[in-house]
Amino acid sequence: MAGNSFGNIFRITTWGESHGKALGVVVDGVPAGLELCEEDIQLFLDRRKPGQTGISTPRKEDDLVEILSGVFEGKTTGTSLSMMVKNTSQKSRDYSQIADCYRPGHADYTFDEKYGFRDYRGGGRSSGRETIGRVAGGAIASKILKEMGIDVFAYTTAIGPVKIDRENFDRNAILLNPTAMPDNVANEQALAFLQTARANYDSVGGVMECTVTGLPAGLGDPVFEKLDANLARAIMSIGAVKAVEIGDGVRVSESLGSENNDAFFADETGIHKATNHSGGTLGGISDGAPLVLRAYVKPTPSIFQTQHTVNRDGENTEIAIKGRHDPIIVPRAVVVMESMTALTVLDALLLNMTARLDRIVEFYGS
Amino acid sequence: MAGNSFGNIFRITTWGESHGKALGVVVDGVPAGLELCEEDIQLFLDRRKPGQTGISTPRKEDDLVEILSGVFEGKTTGTSLSMMVKNTSQKSRDYSQIADCYRPGHADYTFDEKYGFRDYRGGGRSSGRETIGRVAGGAIASKILKEMGIDVFAYTTAIGPVKIDRENFDRNAILLNPTAMPDNVANEQALAFLQTARANYDSVGGVMECTVTGLPAGLGDPVFEKLDANLARAIMSIGAVKAVEIGDGVRVSESLGSENNDAFFADETGIHKATNHSGGTLGGISDGAPLVLRAYVKPTPSIFQTQHTVNRDGENTEIAIKGRHDPIIVPRAVVVMESMTALTVLDALLLNMTARLDRIVEFYGS
Amino acid sequence: MAGNSFGNIFRITTWGESHGKALGVVVDGVPAGLELCEEDIQLFLDRRKPGQTGISTPRKEDDLVEILSGVFEGKTTGTSLSMMVKNTSQKSRDYSQIADCYRPGHADYTFDEKYGFRDYRGGGRSSGRETIGRVAGGAIASKILKEMGIDVFAYTTAIGPVKIDRENFDRNAILLNPTAMPDNVANEQALAFLQTARANYDSVGGVMECTVTGLPAGLGDPVFEKLDANLARAIMSIGAVKAVEIGDGVRVSESLGSENNDAFFADETGIHKATNHSGGTLGGISDGAPLVLRAYVKPTPSIFQTQHTVNRDGENTEIAIKGRHDPIIVPRAVVVMESMTALTVLDALLLNMTARLDRIVEFYGS
Amino acid sequence: MAGNSFGNIFRITTWGESHGKALGVVVDGVPAGLELCEEDIQLFLDRRKPGQTGISTPRKEDDLVEILSGVFEGKTTGTSLSMMVKNTSQKSRDYSQIADCYRPGHADYTFDEKYGFRDYRGGGRSSGRETIGRVAGGAIASKILKEMGIDVFAYTTAIGPVKIDRENFDRNAILLNPTAMPDNVANEQALAFLQTARANYDSVGGVMECTVTGLPAGLGDPVFEKLDANLARAIMSIGAVKAVEIGDGVRVSESLGSENNDAFFADETGIHKATNHSGGTLGGISDGAPLVLRAYVKPTPSIFQTQHTVNRDGENTEIAIKGRHDPIIVPRAVVVMESMTALTVLDALLLNMTARLDRIVEFYGS
Repeated sequence: MAGNSFGNIFRITTWGESHGKALGVVVDGVPAGLELCEEDIQLFLDRRKPGQTGISTPRKEDDLVEILSGVFEGKTTGTSLSMMVKNTSQKSRDYSQIADCYRPGHADYTFDEKYGFRDYRGGGRSSGRETIGRVAGGAIASKILKEMGIDVFAYTTAIGPVKIDRENFDRNAILLNPTAMPDNVANEQALAFLQTARANYDSVGGVMECTVTGLPAGLGDPVFEKLDANLARAIMSIGAVKAVEIGDGVRVSESLGSENNDAFFADETGIHKATNHSGGTLGGISDGAPLVLRAYVKPTPSIFQTQHTVNRDGENTEIAIKGRHDPIIVPRAVVVMESMTALTVLDALLLNMTARLDRIVEFYGS
Repeated sequence: MAGNSFGNIFRITTWGESHGKALGVVVDGVPAGLELCEEDIQLFLDRRKPGQTGISTPRKEDDLVEILSGVFEGKTTGTSLSMMVKNTSQKSRDYSQIADCYRPGHADYTFDEKYGFRDYRGGGRSSGRETIGRVAGGAIASKILKEMGIDVFAYTTAIGPVKIDRENFDRNAILLNPTAMPDNVANEQALAFLQTARANYDSVGGVMECTVTGLPAGLGDPVFEKLDANLARAIMSIGAVKAVEIGDGVRVSESLGSENNDAFFADETGIHKATNHSGGTLGGISDGAPLVLRAYVKPTPSIFQTQHTVNRDGENTEIAIKGRHDPIIVPRAVVVMESMTALTVLDALLLNMTARLDRIVEFYGS
Repeated sequence: MAGNSFGNIFRITTWGESHGKALGVVVDGVPAGLELCEEDIQLFLDRRKPGQTGISTPRKEDDLVEILSGVFEGKTTGTSLSMMVKNTSQKSRDYSQIADCYRPGHADYTFDEKYGFRDYRGGGRSSGRETIGRVAGGAIASKILKEMGIDVFAYTTAIGPVKIDRENFDRNAILLNPTAMPDNVANEQALAFLQTARANYDSVGGVMECTVTGLPAGLGDPVFEKLDANLARAIMSIGAVKAVEIGDGVRVSESLGSENNDAFFADETGIHKATNHSGGTLGGISDGAPLVLRAYVKPTPSIFQTQHTVNRDGENTEIAIKGRHDPIIVPRAVVVMESMTALTVLDALLLNMTARLDRIVEFYGS
Repeated sequence: MAGNSFGNIFRITTWGESHGKALGVVVDGVPAGLELCEEDIQLFLDRRKPGQTGISTPRKEDDLVEILSGVFEGKTTGTSLSMMVKNTSQKSRDYSQIADCYRPGHADYTFDEKYGFRDYRGGGRSSGRETIGRVAGGAIASKILKEMGIDVFAYTTAIGPVKIDRENFDRNAILLNPTAMPDNVANEQALAFLQTARANYDSVGGVMECTVTGLPAGLGDPVFEKLDANLARAIMSIGAVKAVEIGDGVRVSESLGSENNDAFFADETGIHKATNHSGGTLGGISDGAPLVLRAYVKPTPSIFQTQHTVNRDGENTEIAIKGRHDPIIVPRAVVVMESMTALTVLDALLLNMTARLDRIVEFYGS
């Protein structure tokens, strides 16, 4: 089935395998008139590049983006915008280990069950490189949101047992720290923890968070198109994410109503909430407070220890994965979470323009 | 926008307000030839009825379902199937408190911001009664899945601090216990905890879980239509759910790869996983192990304590909610989680039929 | 599959069989704040009622509509709006003729091939009564369009060989003439022609046209969501329509470019076209001139002559259809064409609000 | 909005402008296991190439296709398949005439109204080159259909007043004649007619037809997803098509029921229709007879005569178009009609797999 598209009005359709010729995305529904160049996209893509820090695999992948359509004289035309990143660093090498065995924690087995066979080179379509298209599309969504005063930013809040201290929150640190943590102290602790894991041929999980500020109240629909429901899908669709929460999230199950409810108050600037346990939505609709989302990410499934598994012939065997693999997924996935959030929020913003008759009449009357 | 539909091939479209004339659902894409009668649906709807236990509001709502189309001589025809439940217990009463004030934790404020006004009677479209359509549709999905040997069942695993003991798991207890817990001991403890909360004019949160067994490997698509992503959306779209997880969920963030990976092994019956940390999906595609999902639910926002809030004129005020309100949402929401899961899984099953050319050719050849 | 919905932002989902309990529609995406009552809908439904004239079957069907949700205190709420028409005139009668045989020109055979069986009572889901939901939804779309100065109206232009004379065009005559022709002379000639056909136990085809005025330029998208493409689908989806054209339609195939091109000119009120061969679209996008569409409708397939056919057991047999059947479909289908056009145009209007970044920014800024 | 996708299960998303860097398509939902190479696609693309005959513009465009993803070791993988054709023949030239003026019959004016500006180079997104993506996608759909014994082929039936003689129908002639007519006599007459039109600085319209054989009965849904409705949209979405018909099409309006109904008969091979006035569908569902569709195409709007028009400043002016333009659109559009038909039919075939419960159960049981 057609499962490579995301969004309604603003929709991305992604393509490409880890070791194929190229990866890319068609972004459809980009409003006309946005100033856009390849540098806008490249800044986002560079945040998911490997090889930047000690904790990340030393592969060098330039991932240079090319805009192929939809931009004319520096502005989006309103028609479909195509972007491509050529694969340059893949080499013909020995894939026989992956080709024959099902790596635990990977999609090898499920691909074979679904499709009958699979492109085993570097994980094929189930590789983390699949997110290139998401991030390229998210860069455009983020740029549009910025034009409207809406700010979307994601960061790491935990790596294994190491958690950030909210007192130390430093937004500028996100892009500077290899862990993408907004806390320099936690960043150091996390790096040390990662070194130990790597020395043990093991990998670790973590938590990432995304905050959206500047969002007007009223986005999202009351039933199936709840803003938080669509965000949950967006974020759970990122490989390795196993839990998603909004606001107080899992903690609400042990809260009392008197603690969890956010009181409203009014001042000269309008109506506000005294707290934000809800994480920015009420009844699935944005409530004017910042959106706060969290994703829990599993450890990298590629580890260098020997694991029990099965081969394609259904025989029991063992595998010890070789190659270049990060011991943690989170730092490079942060920009993916940010992108998926931006795409979802922008789509809700566009869909919301038709909610009220008086505003529609005014729109066409002016 | 059109936000009241869920599903691709098997799609429900729901309608109705808490205190309107009726609520209902159109179920589109029901395969022809399913034996179906109103009793099949009623059994599901009765599980979300209030008034059955001490912890639930004493309202009496019969919620009798009527099938209006799509069934002929006891079998589904393949055309759109319409079901309706008339509202009988609503009475004309004084809604001025809700009409004027924004109840904390409710969608009153966000509806007004989105639509300019709202049907304030009993919460209107944002009421828990909105789920009648979901459950009626879910009953059909569940029946189809049962015909294929797939079993979907949900239950409560925690109410406030009271958690079930997995050692005591008794599936038969789910439908008998007012808490929907599969553990009679925990059920008693939870009821006591709820009495205390109610005595304090307060409410509590909880956790519900859904398990799906009998699912073939291969359902779900690798990128945006991941089975777990669609389940996350399905379940987060249930009012009051603030977190969704699959398999080990939030715990993966503190796991090591060597702990989290599920080893494969083969025996005479095929390929299996030695553990199920993944909760039944790998790379977004079902892996043949049971699906295990969890949802974290906030406390009922309607509490009888006085709360600070704002009225429609933007003035600070106070509210002490009156009326009939459960101190917990979870037990009645369990069947909603089960329904949303069944709808999602069935849709994935139908979509998956087109994954392989050889199977398509065989389908039409026979 | 789910095939009973139409539209993206403004979407109808219809249900019901000719002789089932009821028929209806869920209209999703209705903007909040439209004043709406059942009378608004009833006026449209009454136009497709039979029994009003000599040429139409003498059945009496009241087709009273009931609004079940989505309206509060006389205004649409923005949530899903459900409408129902109960079937009252169907009686238990002898369907064995239809049940066993495949009526030529009807969907009996194709339903059996697709679904394995069918609800044979009065044609079931393939009956003309299926259009009740379309017309009820179209009534709402038309009302919204009227609020924006957009006028959608359909009428009959030919019945068999009898064609209207454009010189005689009288819009007021449409609703008064049993043929729905805007020409009183042609109306009389057509009625005489129909009497002859009926006397011969035969039926006749015809042509209907729909005009839309007041439409702004810019609606529709350049590739697959062309306004004319979506209108073609909308109108071809009406049972018995076998051809759809826009503007000069089939005649363009014998035109020269120098004849077919519409010259532009400017005056103090803006830019216009000197002619309207294009029928109101250029490149799939509305060009500010009136939309003009035409549909060619086949003769009623139910005729009282004996016809060769096959029964469900695959045996050759004969059928002479009994019962009450109009000798022509067109006059009652005119309001269906008007409804489908209104639905399509409104959806394009809502979708078009997101075409330009500057307008989006202005929308949220104000 | 996102308007560059077509199809549900098998979906193409196209991109690219006439004179941009490249054009392409993402084909999503391709079943795994189809043998596919670039040559399969190139054969289709070559049929829409200009420069092959005297009637066609002498531009040389190689339009070489490259498959970028979704194929592994010669077979489709089931994941999204990306194809690209680089633009090679465009040169930097003087576009000031098109940039400033609205060409009659073109989308220049409507693009400006919709988007505020446009990529004026060669028509940008509204160029006939937009169909490259459709044809590349259609080539894959056609190949799959062929594997199932379904044959889709289109051809020219009229150019201006010159019509083919059905007695002379020669399928092999379609690909050999520059007019794509299956009649060598008519082909000669048409070429002569075109020479005259060209000498007069004028252009002409025509008619193309598509036939589908081997289709099983049962495809398409009874209401909005009627097979003929979706085909109407598919074909009307091809630029310059102004009318679409199925079977007897416009002629049904002057038929009698006794003439138009197709009698059924049975023989040892099953149930058939004695005639095919319906063109292969009954009630929107395929009836086992060949599908027969026709499209009426307007004359090329680019003519070399002087025309009245308006410039971007809203001033009256004149334009005499220069450059290389075919005097007729039809011969090169035939493969586009064939492609859009193949895409629509294949999607209906895939969707139809879920119509019956017994077949679903059997599918998963085996």
